[in-house]
This record gives sequence, C-alpha cells and structure tokens, in this order.
Amino acid sequence: MAEEYVVIQAEPLRAYAAQMLEGAGVSSERAAFIAHTLVEANLRGVDSHGVQLLNFYVEHMAMRCMDLETSGHVVTESGGTMTYSADNGIGQIVSDVCCDHVIRLAKEHGVSLVTVRDSNHFGAAAFWSQKIARAGLIGVSFCNATPLVPPWQGKEPRFGTNPICMALPGAAETSWLLDMATTTVAMGKIFKANFSGEPTIPAGWAFDSEGVPTTDTQKAIKGMPMPLGGYKGYGLAMMVEILVAVLSGGAMSTEVGGVRIRTRPMRCGQAFIGIDVARYMPLNEFHARMDWLTGNMKSTPPSAGFEEVLVAGEPEWRMARKRKVDGIPLAKGVWEELARTAAKVNVKAPQ
Amino acid sequence: MAEEYVVIQAEPLRAYAAQMLEGAGVSSERAAFIAHTLVEANLRGVDSHGVQLLNFYVEHMAMRCMDLETSGHVVTESGGTMTYSADNGIGQIVSDVCCDHVIRLAKEHGVSLVTVRDSNHFGAAAFWSQKIARAGLIGVSFCNATPLVPPWQGKEPRFGTNPICMALPGAAETSWLLDMATTTVAMGKIFKANFSGEPTIPAGWAFDSEGVPTTDTQKAIKGMPMPLGGYKGYGLAMMVEILVAVLSGGAMSTEVGGVRIRTRPMRCGQAFIGIDVARYMPLNEFHARMDWLTGNMKSTPPSAGFEEVLVAGEPEWRMARKRKVDGIPLAKGVWEELARTAAKVNVKAPQ
Repeated sequence: MAEEYVVIQAEPLRAYAAQMLEGAGVSSERAAFIAHTLVEANLRGVDSHGVQLLNFYVEHMAMRCMDLETSGHVVTESGGTMTYSADNGIGQIVSDVCCDHVIRLAKEHGVSLVTVRDSNHFGAAAFWSQKIARAGLIGVSFCNATPLVPPWQGKEPRFGTNPICMALPGAAETSWLLDMATTTVAMGKIFKANFSGEPTIPAGWAFDSEGVPTTDTQKAIKGMPMPLGGYKGYGLAMMVEILVAVLSGGAMSTEVGGVRIRTRPMRCGQAFIGIDVARYMPLNEFHARMDWLTGNMKSTPPSAGFEEVLVAGEPEWRMARKRKVDGIPLAKGVWEELARTAAKVNVKAPQ
Repeated sequence: MAEEYVVIQAEPLRAYAAQMLEGAGVSSERAAFIAHTLVEANLRGVDSHGVQLLNFYVEHMAMRCMDLETSGHVVTESGGTMTYSADNGIGQIVSDVCCDHVIRLAKEHGVSLVTVRDSNHFGAAAFWSQKIARAGLIGVSFCNATPLVPPWQGKEPRFGTNPICMALPGAAETSWLLDMATTTVAMGKIFKANFSGEPTIPAGWAFDSEGVPTTDTQKAIKGMPMPLGGYKGYGLAMMVEILVAVLSGGAMSTEVGGVRIRTRPMRCGQAFIGIDVARYMPLNEFHARMDWLTGNMKSTPPSAGFEEVLVAGEPEWRMARKRKVDGIPLAKGVWEELARTAAKVNVKAPQ
C-alpha cells in the first residue's frame, strides 16, 4: 500500500508551525525560532524530529506543562564549565541560550561543557551541534529523554534514546555530521514497520515486553527498542545520562517525564560541548584533513549490494538539497493529525 | 576441549613482564611501569590488552621500531587544549605524561582535551581514563589503531577498533567504567570462536573478506569485524578518528601502521579529556547521584535467562577481586608464546 503524502514548501510549513505555537501561547519571536528548528529537521529528512513533534508540544504548551516565558538561569559558571537550570522552559529556547554560553566559554578556555537540568524536549540534537560548529568549534550535544529503553539484561525501561551528536566547524561543516540515538533504531522505525503491515523486523531492533529480543513486529510494538549492539549501547546511554543528568543535578532515568505525560514536568537534561579547533590547527587545515579522511572513506570499494560508501550526515544533506527545491513530503496521517492539533488552538491548516 | 591455563599471581607476572621489557632495551623504571599497566588489564580480565601484548611490543622495541627513550613533546598548549607529539615514543610512557597534562589543564580551566600524534599502542584505554579519574575528574580516552574495520557498505579496512572509554572520580570510581571498542566485538572473540572450533558466530559480529555480513567463523577469520550496530558504529569510529587523528595532525585511517608492521612507525593517535566534577557539584554529591543511578539499573527486573542487571565495569571489578587472590590464569598457548618472546631477549620464564 503506497503511502500518501502532502507536499509543502519549507517557508509555509514554518509559518504554519509558528502559528500553532503562537496559538499555544508562545511569543511570536520564540514561535518563529522553534518553527525554524523543527522545519530544519524536516528538510534534512529527519521527520521524527520535525513538525510532527507539534502534536505533543502544542498541547503541552497550551496546558502550561512548561514555562513559555522563561529562558532559565545560570546556576554556576567556572572556567569552561557551567551548570544551567532550564526552569522548565522550552527546550529549544533554553538550548539556544546554552549553546551561546558553550561558544563563549570555549572561545575563552579552549574547551567547554554546559550541562542543563529541568529542561524540555529540544528537537533534533543536530541543530544544536551545528549551531556550536558555526561559531568555529567542534560542537557536541547530548540529551536524555522519556524512559523507553531497558538496560541490557533488564526488562523495564530506564533510559531514553539518549543521542550522541557531533558537528564540525568551518568548511568542514558539510563533510561529516553524526546524530545518532544509542538504540539500534529509533522507535519510529518500529512504528513504521507496523504501519506498513510488515510482520517482522530485523534482529537487534527490539525486545518484547519481557525484555526478550524479538523480530515480531507486534511484540516489538508492545515492547522496547534495543540498545545499540546490546550492552555497548547501554554503556553509551549511561555515558550520556551521566553527562546530562548526574552532572547537572537534574532528573535521572525514571525521574524524567515525557512529552506524553501531563502530570509532571518533563525535567529532561541536555549537555553541550565546544572545542576550539583553531587552538589545535588553522580551520582551513582542519577542513583539508577532513576532506582527505572522508575521501578515504568514500573511495573504499563498496561491498556487494551497495553502490557507494557514505559518511555520516551525507544522506541528510542530499535530502535537504532536494527538499529545499521540491518541498517537504509529510505523510497524510501526520498532516491530518497536525490539522487536528492546529484546530485546537484555532489555527487553520494551509491549503 | 577444555583449555589449559597457567595460573600466576600479579606480582611475579609484573616482574616477568618488566624483565622482558628491559631485555628489549627499556629502562628499568619504564619497564616496571609498562608491566604494571599490562597486568592491571589482566587483573580486570581484559587479557587481550594484558601481557600477551608483549609478544608484539618486545619485538617491536628490540628492533627499535619505536623510540624507547623519548617522552614526546608539547606542540601547542592554549587554555584547556593541547596538541602533543609522541615522537614515536612508547604509548604508555607518552600517555602517562599526557594524562598529567590533561589533569593539570582541567584543574586550571574546568575542561581539557589533549590530542596526541605519532604515538604507539597504549594498552587498555581504561588505565588512562582511570588515571585521570583518580585526580578527581571525569576521565575520557580514545585512540585509533591499525585499520581492521571497514566503513559501513565498504569492503576494505579503514579504521581500528577505535575505543571510547570513560571513568568516574572519587568514590564513584567503582560505580561505573565504560571501555568499549566501536566494533560489535573485539577481533579476539572471533579468533577465540575459531580456536574453540565453533563453526558459527552470532550475526552482527563480522564481515567476510568481501564486506558481506557472515556468521561463518572461517569466513569471519579471513574477513573483518563489524562496526557496532552497522552504520552507527562506523559513525562513532569516525568521531574517535577526528578527535585523535584529524585534530592532532597525526596519521589518519590507512596512514596508521600497526604492532605487526615493522617497516614504518605505528603513528597511532590518542586523545584524553578531563572534566572537573567539583566545578559542577561536590564530589560526594556526584557519588551519591551515581549510587542512585546504578542502583536504579541494578534493581531493574532481569529479563528471561538472566539473573541480574549489571553496569559497565562491574564484571571487570568482580574479576579483579578474584584474580588478586586466586592469581591470573593465562591460556597455555599464550604462556608458551610469551616464553618464546622472553627467550629472544634472554629472559627465563618463571616456574
């Protein structure tokens, strides 16, 4: 069964998203910025972190589950380190401020690490690593999230998909960009297999509800995503949890709420790292070295069944070039759900 | 077929290892230190990174493939950043100096990152992260290595097993320790399956020599280890390569030699990060939070077939407690190979 799509250009999609956010009570300046971050994810083809998040955000915001006005505050700043409290502010607004801090501190001290507590969902991590990278730094970002993933050998969720994301500065910006959940695949891929009527999913994607690895789509839907490669993904998720939650003094593991939970603040954590490349070598030299390295990857003879070797970020840049011209295809189901969300805040979907 | 072991206590094993290193031309002080780092890995049960490395090291050293006297030199230092040239010195000697630098710089600036070029094999990454952690910091270490692993969709090696390692300070030291290759398993596990006569290995461990995933042990032996979880492990390996090789100005990817290659220096790279936890919160608070978090993992109900949930580092601490008392069992084949290596430098194996 072919999926139906509504195709919309980035600009009207941004305007629509901003209207919905304003309808939920967000100031117009903030709404425009948040809409921009979401549509950037759609342009890159990362639709799970694009405007479909508004179905969660808008209701959360309209019910004042988060503080729409605050920008949070600095708890401590010392050398290249900072603890920041988001004060239950909007994840994107707070992350924007914190990335400015991480940039300033890395320029002053060479390396910086800002850890953030009591925050909300910040969208795609790539947006923030790229913001840091555009200031001439290697930008790294992490976050924790609603517990969905069990520790290895366990059968109850203790972690979010706790992503690891790194972006590169200067002309190296488009040579490589890593943004990966520490699960084998995002839960969205399992939902998609279900939606498409696939009876099975590949081994290594999911557990059933008892924590037993399964390839049965129906069992996986009721189960949990698997940490990347088993115990190693569990270790990476814990590494992220330590940097964003233990170190920030914020909510850890099962203390974190969620975008579907209305009874308590989400309280997720984020961490941002900046590394001032120019202190190691001139940026153009760094770029030339990255060119050599990605060239060395891309010239690797492809294995059977593949036509080329890619580097991280490449599929998304290709997609962005295409979608900037052709527009963004949103699944009809997503579009209709967005329209229902919009209606709740008295916004009309564009034609 | 049961494997036969020679069991030896840590102290005489250290002395034996040190004698072999001295036999290869290393000063007695340096030899004792390197022997200590190797036996620490054996105590933790990480035998692949213990004294069996001497079979490579000793010949390499005796042939002066590395510089046994140098400690390398600082190329640049600025804020919390440093580029260090190992000048083809011994990996453990140079890493010890660089960890001292990373500790000093993190104490001065809060966060530090030392990247190292033209180095040699540094043993287990855990030793270095733990050294940094014992100074009250979160300690992180990375390295690249001899190309063995192909990029995803490629069929020729471009990466080492490029590990990611993080250790925690103070009383949190033994609450969690991550030290993981960015491949699904170490090549040693595939060798072991072969040695034990297992016809197949689990899916996801290896490619055949054409870069096609295989579960045939014989094809895997002639093939390549698989990046952890496929394209994500490839992304993580590249992240490591950027921090240790692109940023250091050293050898990248296929430019890196190896412990089995005698015709050119290894030129591997390392990177060390220090994060001064006390600038974020008192160390005892950090420890209490880690206790809560690891407790939250360990209290997760185990899934079918498992008796408990562990945290990273726990199997190794258990092993170390046992081996400190019972001694270190070395496979008879490893012991005999060591004896042959020792004989080459006129050292007699202990009885």
